[in-house]
Amino acid sequence: MAVTVVGSIAFDSVRTPFGERERMLGGSAVHFSLAASFFSEVRVVGPVGEDFGDEQLAVLERRGVETGDIERVPGGETFFWRGHYEYDLNTAHTDETRLGVFADFAPKLSPGSRGAETLFLANIQPQLQQQVRAQCRDARLVALDSMNLWIETARDPLLAAIAEVDCVILNDAEIRELTAEPNLARAARTLMGLGPRMVVAKRGEYGAALFTADGFFALPGLPLEDVRDPTGAGDSFAGGFLGYLDSQGGEPDEAALRRAMGYGTVLASFNVEQFGTERVAALTREEVDERLRSLHRMTQFEAIPQPAR
Amino acid sequence: MAVTVVGSIAFDSVRTPFGERERMLGGSAVHFSLAASFFSEVRVVGPVGEDFGDEQLAVLERRGVETGDIERVPGGETFFWRGHYEYDLNTAHTDETRLGVFADFAPKLSPGSRGAETLFLANIQPQLQQQVRAQCRDARLVALDSMNLWIETARDPLLAAIAEVDCVILNDAEIRELTAEPNLARAARTLMGLGPRMVVAKRGEYGAALFTADGFFALPGLPLEDVRDPTGAGDSFAGGFLGYLDSQGGEPDEAALRRAMGYGTVLASFNVEQFGTERVAALTREEVDERLRSLHRMTQFEAIPQPAR
Repeated sequence: MAVTVVGSIAFDSVRTPFGERERMLGGSAVHFSLAASFFSEVRVVGPVGEDFGDEQLAVLERRGVETGDIERVPGGETFFWRGHYEYDLNTAHTDETRLGVFADFAPKLSPGSRGAETLFLANIQPQLQQQVRAQCRDARLVALDSMNLWIETARDPLLAAIAEVDCVILNDAEIRELTAEPNLARAARTLMGLGPRMVVAKRGEYGAALFTADGFFALPGLPLEDVRDPTGAGDSFAGGFLGYLDSQGGEPDEAALRRAMGYGTVLASFNVEQFGTERVAALTREEVDERLRSLHRMTQFEAIPQPAR
Repeated sequence: MAVTVVGSIAFDSVRTPFGERERMLGGSAVHFSLAASFFSEVRVVGPVGEDFGDEQLAVLERRGVETGDIERVPGGETFFWRGHYEYDLNTAHTDETRLGVFADFAPKLSPGSRGAETLFLANIQPQLQQQVRAQCRDARLVALDSMNLWIETARDPLLAAIAEVDCVILNDAEIRELTAEPNLARAARTLMGLGPRMVVAKRGEYGAALFTADGFFALPGLPLEDVRDPTGAGDSFAGGFLGYLDSQGGEPDEAALRRAMGYGTVLASFNVEQFGTERVAALTREEVDERLRSLHRMTQFEAIPQPAR
């Protein structure tokens, strides 16, 4: 089993009410890879510049992530994002974006990356997502993330990309915006009408919800007292979710899907406890499983109705 | 077992994107009473004017609610609220409020209402909540709701009222505003430091969370495709939650608290499906229990981690 992820590899400069960091390792493909690495073999595809060093590569390789498809562009600069958060940690404010080598990114996957059973198309231009999808014909589970920029500037290519995947993973506000449907349950059904058999709505601190053809499942977020930097939480969720599903092989049954939602929630919760990749890069599988058990304890109840009066 | 609720009895004129109604029966005490009536004996305390008719009383009495402490004020006008919602059904826009008989409300509880084991102080002036609390010294479980108006204009009386109850039931934004603490888990702990042993954070469509001294439990909202009018959802939640707890008697254990959160979620979900009290007034206990089983199916997972790789 293996997971391939195509997305951004970045330097992030982030300020929150709880501190700030300059040029941390970040990017959707990085957060995803680290989270997925607790469950399965991960191959990461994306471009970096000459400013990207062995130190950054080592963060991925220490977690066993296969980095052979990270393309180092001579003379190029790695994607850079600077942003900040106020006390409302649900809203990222972008202060600066430099695309660098990402501007001319044309994904070329090695045979190994192309052969993965699971593929995550992280938040990049929808046309590129379609190109990557076309290179991975054997993938059994393909999921896609996106953002408001593409919903507003590349809606048709995004809808075309969505039609070719099994699973859409978006924030609930993005699902509403994309479908122009304020009711989330209806909006998810609209997306499934385009092709995907699963829609995951990420809800920030409120957790996540999974819509399938004949079902619904939702988990709250963990009640964290120390949230320092939410950057990458959504990609860590996707990494936990898809990494676990990949590790189970075959067509996931309902129990595996639900446990995958749990692992996604857990990885996202670790992600936000420290800046950038700090927490997830230092995590152990034992901590992951222990927190899944905590989440389980916090969400289960016995539905044995008493007799009606 | 019996529950007493003190709060508003109102006429509501409501417009949402899905329709509008003039002068429906409403008010916090009404929504609470109808929801709680599925589980226990309910006594409602509040003032009405001469415009309040037998037709309105009958809605409560058909559900077995004890209405003897509804005080009809000669020459008075019943509390009136006019409001509307846009597609974001989480935000109520108030267009008109006429306090009417509510302006001079001085709660006088009959011996029967005073003797209830469970007391809900719905969203009224905190000083009145304290007066009512003082009349019900034998209540084993006292819960309180409030709103941004009192947080902003009567913060100290509200904190004093909170110090004398067992359970605070507020929207999560109100909990943050009241404690000036953006982190909900910390904010809930701050409130428990004032006296209450439970804090329920209502989260609109995202469900609700329960904080206790040594625990946390949360449920998502049900994925409703038809939400017509959210007015009263929070009070219906409180009615399901406290009504069920009252029916169980004694000190609620963790299993009862969690099932109560489920019943609160279920009653709130029915409340919003139609305007005003329309849906809950016509509901059966069988429908309530069936939906609790649905909620159970939508939220449970098996946390059996696979061996680490």
